Amino acid sequence: MNKNSIKVAVLGVSGYSGGELVRLLLDHPKFADNPPLLLGRSGSEAVALTSLQPQLSGLPHADELSVVPFDWKLLQEEGVEILFLATPHEQSREDVPAAIAAGIRVIDLSGAWRLRHEANRAVYKLTDADPTAAAQLQSEAVYGSPELHAEQIKTARLVANPGCYATSIILALAPLVRANLINLDHGIICDAKSGVSGAGKAPTPGTHFMYAADNLSAYAVFGHRHTGELLEQLNLDASQIQFTPHLLPIPRGILSTIYVRLASPGSIISMQSCFDEFYADAPMVRVRRSPALPQIQHVVRTSFCDLGFQLSPDGQRLVIVSCLDNLLKGAASQAVQNMNLMAAFPESEGLR
Amino acid sequence: MNKNSIKVAVLGVSGYSGGELVRLLLDHPKFADNPPLLLGRSGSEAVALTSLQPQLSGLPHADELSVVPFDWKLLQEEGVEILFLATPHEQSREDVPAAIAAGIRVIDLSGAWRLRHEANRAVYKLTDADPTAAAQLQSEAVYGSPELHAEQIKTARLVANPGCYATSIILALAPLVRANLINLDHGIICDAKSGVSGAGKAPTPGTHFMYAADNLSAYAVFGHRHTGELLEQLNLDASQIQFTPHLLPIPRGILSTIYVRLASPGSIISMQSCFDEFYADAPMVRVRRSPALPQIQHVVRTSFCDLGFQLSPDGQRLVIVSCLDNLLKGAASQAVQNMNLMAAFPESEGLR
Amino acid sequence: MNKNSIKVAVLGVSGYSGGELVRLLLDHPKFADNPPLLLGRSGSEAVALTSLQPQLSGLPHADELSVVPFDWKLLQEEGVEILFLATPHEQSREDVPAAIAAGIRVIDLSGAWRLRHEANRAVYKLTDADPTAAAQLQSEAVYGSPELHAEQIKTARLVANPGCYATSIILALAPLVRANLINLDHGIICDAKSGVSGAGKAPTPGTHFMYAADNLSAYAVFGHRHTGELLEQLNLDASQIQFTPHLLPIPRGILSTIYVRLASPGSIISMQSCFDEFYADAPMVRVRRSPALPQIQHVVRTSFCDLGFQLSPDGQRLVIVSCLDNLLKGAASQAVQNMNLMAAFPESEGLR
Amino acid sequence: MNKNSIKVAVLGVSGYSGGELVRLLLDHPKFADNPPLLLGRSGSEAVALTSLQPQLSGLPHADELSVVPFDWKLLQEEGVEILFLATPHEQSREDVPAAIAAGIRVIDLSGAWRLRHEANRAVYKLTDADPTAAAQLQSEAVYGSPELHAEQIKTARLVANPGCYATSIILALAPLVRANLINLDHGIICDAKSGVSGAGKAPTPGTHFMYAADNLSAYAVFGHRHTGELLEQLNLDASQIQFTPHLLPIPRGILSTIYVRLASPGSIISMQSCFDEFYADAPMVRVRRSPALPQIQHVVRTSFCDLGFQLSPDGQRLVIVSCLDNLLKGAASQAVQNMNLMAAFPESEGLR
Repeated sequence: MNKNSIKVAVLGVSGYSGGELVRLLLDHPKFADNPPLLLGRSGSEAVALTSLQPQLSGLPHADELSVVPFDWKLLQEEGVEILFLATPHEQSREDVPAAIAAGIRVIDLSGAWRLRHEANRAVYKLTDADPTAAAQLQSEAVYGSPELHAEQIKTARLVANPGCYATSIILALAPLVRANLINLDHGIICDAKSGVSGAGKAPTPGTHFMYAADNLSAYAVFGHRHTGELLEQLNLDASQIQFTPHLLPIPRGILSTIYVRLASPGSIISMQSCFDEFYADAPMVRVRRSPALPQIQHVVRTSFCDLGFQLSPDGQRLVIVSCLDNLLKGAASQAVQNMNLMAAFPESEGLR
Repeated sequence: MNKNSIKVAVLGVSGYSGGELVRLLLDHPKFADNPPLLLGRSGSEAVALTSLQPQLSGLPHADELSVVPFDWKLLQEEGVEILFLATPHEQSREDVPAAIAAGIRVIDLSGAWRLRHEANRAVYKLTDADPTAAAQLQSEAVYGSPELHAEQIKTARLVANPGCYATSIILALAPLVRANLINLDHGIICDAKSGVSGAGKAPTPGTHFMYAADNLSAYAVFGHRHTGELLEQLNLDASQIQFTPHLLPIPRGILSTIYVRLASPGSIISMQSCFDEFYADAPMVRVRRSPALPQIQHVVRTSFCDLGFQLSPDGQRLVIVSCLDNLLKGAASQAVQNMNLMAAFPESEGLR
Repeated sequence: MNKNSIKVAVLGVSGYSGGELVRLLLDHPKFADNPPLLLGRSGSEAVALTSLQPQLSGLPHADELSVVPFDWKLLQEEGVEILFLATPHEQSREDVPAAIAAGIRVIDLSGAWRLRHEANRAVYKLTDADPTAAAQLQSEAVYGSPELHAEQIKTARLVANPGCYATSIILALAPLVRANLINLDHGIICDAKSGVSGAGKAPTPGTHFMYAADNLSAYAVFGHRHTGELLEQLNLDASQIQFTPHLLPIPRGILSTIYVRLASPGSIISMQSCFDEFYADAPMVRVRRSPALPQIQHVVRTSFCDLGFQLSPDGQRLVIVSCLDNLLKGAASQAVQNMNLMAAFPESEGLR
Repeated sequence: MNKNSIKVAVLGVSGYSGGELVRLLLDHPKFADNPPLLLGRSGSEAVALTSLQPQLSGLPHADELSVVPFDWKLLQEEGVEILFLATPHEQSREDVPAAIAAGIRVIDLSGAWRLRHEANRAVYKLTDADPTAAAQLQSEAVYGSPELHAEQIKTARLVANPGCYATSIILALAPLVRANLINLDHGIICDAKSGVSGAGKAPTPGTHFMYAADNLSAYAVFGHRHTGELLEQLNLDASQIQFTPHLLPIPRGILSTIYVRLASPGSIISMQSCFDEFYADAPMVRVRRSPALPQIQHVVRTSFCDLGFQLSPDGQRLVIVSCLDNLLKGAASQAVQNMNLMAAFPESEGLR
């Protein structure tokens, strides 16, 4: 596949990630004349896109587009080639087999298909109508981290788009893990902080302005659902990595501060090279020159993951800081990056 | 009545105003050895105060107090003299007649009894089991603005604690209205801005961090419920005053900017005197020297209403700025101030 | 002039408006292969753009561009046709005559040339080396509000880009003023609120996080510098309009709440038509259907000005709400919109 | 010493810590009739307290108090027994010897006297007029952590009030370190986050609202000045503890997330006992029941340090969360707690 545009559809446009995904697609050069088909599962009537996502008004096509009730027949009539799912986990687990069966490739933004091992997946409490088929589909699902799995993504039928926290941590650690530079006996500490949009659009006590504003809190200390992604993608066991998320009083953005002990003393130059070389061809990762460190303000509303590090004077302890926008590189932009690879568009098209 | 302490009860301690009210009472010198009886209407079991309001932990008595199920018998056994209601409007409308009948004086923080005129009260959609009795009670209810009605409050059986916006505007305008300084034909403009706690503790789309943060919005432009209080207390008709509330991205605090045309040109000195004299004996109102203006940061977490003004060079147009903490002088502190008057305690005791 | 690109330069790229202006130009289709010349007045060495504005990194050309010392010869060698000035008022007053003399058209983002009447301009305390020449230049300067003066802008040599507050208020009132719908005897009240970026990048007590956060304050009540723009553009005298700015605890965005008395009672339909027709061909103004009102969250990081209104039940009093991003439609986007007109590009190109 | 009041003075009341210190002293029962002497070093005239700290207006004595020029004679005439220094480090290093020589006990809120080892103190770049005398004074200075050094504080002539970050971390670790429960070979990770008031009142690029709001950034990764306090108070060497501070977009509050590996597997019960017993008699430390964790919102504007922890399922890894208000338990409240001990007042008087 290598053409000027393809037909894509988005199921689930009312949440934050779905809204950002639509924004990116409307602004994407390849869809200037071929806007995505927008689908919803609630209600039996079409509704104006801008009634669900008023901030999109003014973007190309936005004021004419409707979100129409989901219908498999419609997808096939429209010739949809790639379907984005910005739906709850359970819904994604149910819809993906049908989509694949219908010959439609899927980029799933939920956590339903990210985890290869059933034990890791248990946190999602998923059930499958046809467990054998689901298991087979799971085994071919590609974890949608373009920096790690670009070749498989290009031809994948099912791409499981990574979690936001997981993306920030995996991109920070992958270069070091692949080069065997970390002393894993000492354990890796990942102290991560996320803006409130990561908690979703549903009004809850924890997303109330009065709870989140002027506050900081840790949560899910030994049990966050993204932990399984870290273990599988970095090939670690649970005792080797500790991940603690915190809720920041800001709308969006993640900053992860990651602490590792090196297997043997390193130099700033060798560490810098490790990151620089690993991401030499990665258009959506920016590696800072040590001692410069990323900040949330420089990645918010961008599709980049920014990485930086500092090394202790004895060369043994490394502190890595990783920043991204949880709704973009942590969700919608990464989905578009995967689509670009699947459709043989330039990897960063529509993302800068 | 003039003694060292009295028995008070609070019904409704789970919301923001109820929580602040309990905080003030626990810290009030007159209740050092006589904490309030705390009552709730949901559930049939006592619950620890600090499970509902964890931030009160550490205050005198707070860690031992429970909130017990509401029961009229209990109130009488405990000899409750004053009952604070921090309950929904409908509930207050229902409970007050029974309390008064039982010989218990009431300070009601809801809007149920603030409005003398049925037409103004219509916004609350209240119904009365015994309309005649309710009408009689309504006619004796005192609007709990200590700066305007101290004498009636002292002996009142029912005090209707004012609305937060209404307090900020009425205190700004009362000195001028009473002195007939305003040209009412030109209309008074009240542009008011409130922090999110004013919208209550229930998680809603409008109190979600993502909606309120980094935002400002106007609402209820010609129809806010506090308008009736302005009309009745300032003796205006609806065409003479325009009140527009806005939702500020801060936890608490109200700033009202108020625009009036003077009946005849005035001087800064005469305007300053008008405010200074009106509030000479008001311990909870601070009048700034013009051109200094109040700011929200100086009243938040205090029980004061701060007032300031500037006069146009031609002496005809006055801009008044009024600030208070919506949960304190706009609710809980004003309730305590009313209680102080009713119990013949010093008016500002426990409020500085 | 009607071609595919033109040569532009920006003097002053270190502030907020300058940074946003460069962002817009780098993303502008007409400059994809012809990035702007960037100039600074401090220092004698070129500095990397991203060292001054790190958040621009990743945009087209951004990582290669330098800001070079200002030099008239350089502008002429590069064939600069339009020069943007994002400089202090005094500097703009000094530089503009030289630029015009050199045949370079200017879009000045400062307040130096916005005010036709010397009395209004006095707040800027400007001095002119050649008062006669300056007066002549002033008389030909066009106030850069594309919705009001598009024809003059197209051929202007000097465009004075409007103030942020002024834009939000003028666009809200111009349709009504031009149609003589307002009873000016009653006075127009403009209660405006702006995010902190409006106060500039210099660290001051008033821009300290501890001052601005969780706060709201009014300032410059009878003396804000943008008042003169309101008077001149709306043809009012000072007693007919009252403008009060407030500092909001958010990074960016302006919301102006504007109160007018109508000359004779109107209907919602007639008011809506007044706005709709006035802005029928204005690509950067979005008129909401009453009773919907704009909010800051829907305009931040867009180039739009959003307008909405509500009418009192008696049809006599109108409340208009106007929102824009102070750095975009209030500064940089409006400058680009003006440039589009001057260069005969589509008016909204690069602004959606 | 055991009496009803003592004479105290505060030098340096214009900053955040000094302002909070004065607030606490004005509200302190022991000073109801004996307000502190307030002193400043800039200017030769007395200035009203409320002109420097307007938010104190309304507190007892606040509206009558002046800040007078510093003068050793005045301190002696007034019979000052304890002098609080809320001054820059260099100033404290200079003033303390003179105060002690004059027989005045000192509580110094700066970092000047906290560090016993010259190598640790080097970050402050202090110089001494009389190095020998300074060395002797340093050796008798008591680190003002009442939970660790109450007995020495009671009789100390010089108390060095701890740093805000250091307090949050030391109180979290001291129980475990004293009980030898930590495997120090694995290293302790302290990921700390502080509100902007920790950066001081001076307007700088980093305290500008536009920099701090909606942002998070790490800083001083291997070199924060509070590190020396951790090493000395916890008896660690630099390779055993890693401390990374971050700037939170909130006015006040610190949350430290601390990661330790236990020397041998522990149980939740044993860990809980370790903390509970250590702080059984500590009125200003609140230990939460695991798995409950402290949050910044519950300590802001209180004098408490809140501690909580969770243990990994294998019993080997402990995550401790520690919260306090950096201006209170991290500065002014701790100073008052030290004064209470020095004056034989109840330890928590005026702090609840």
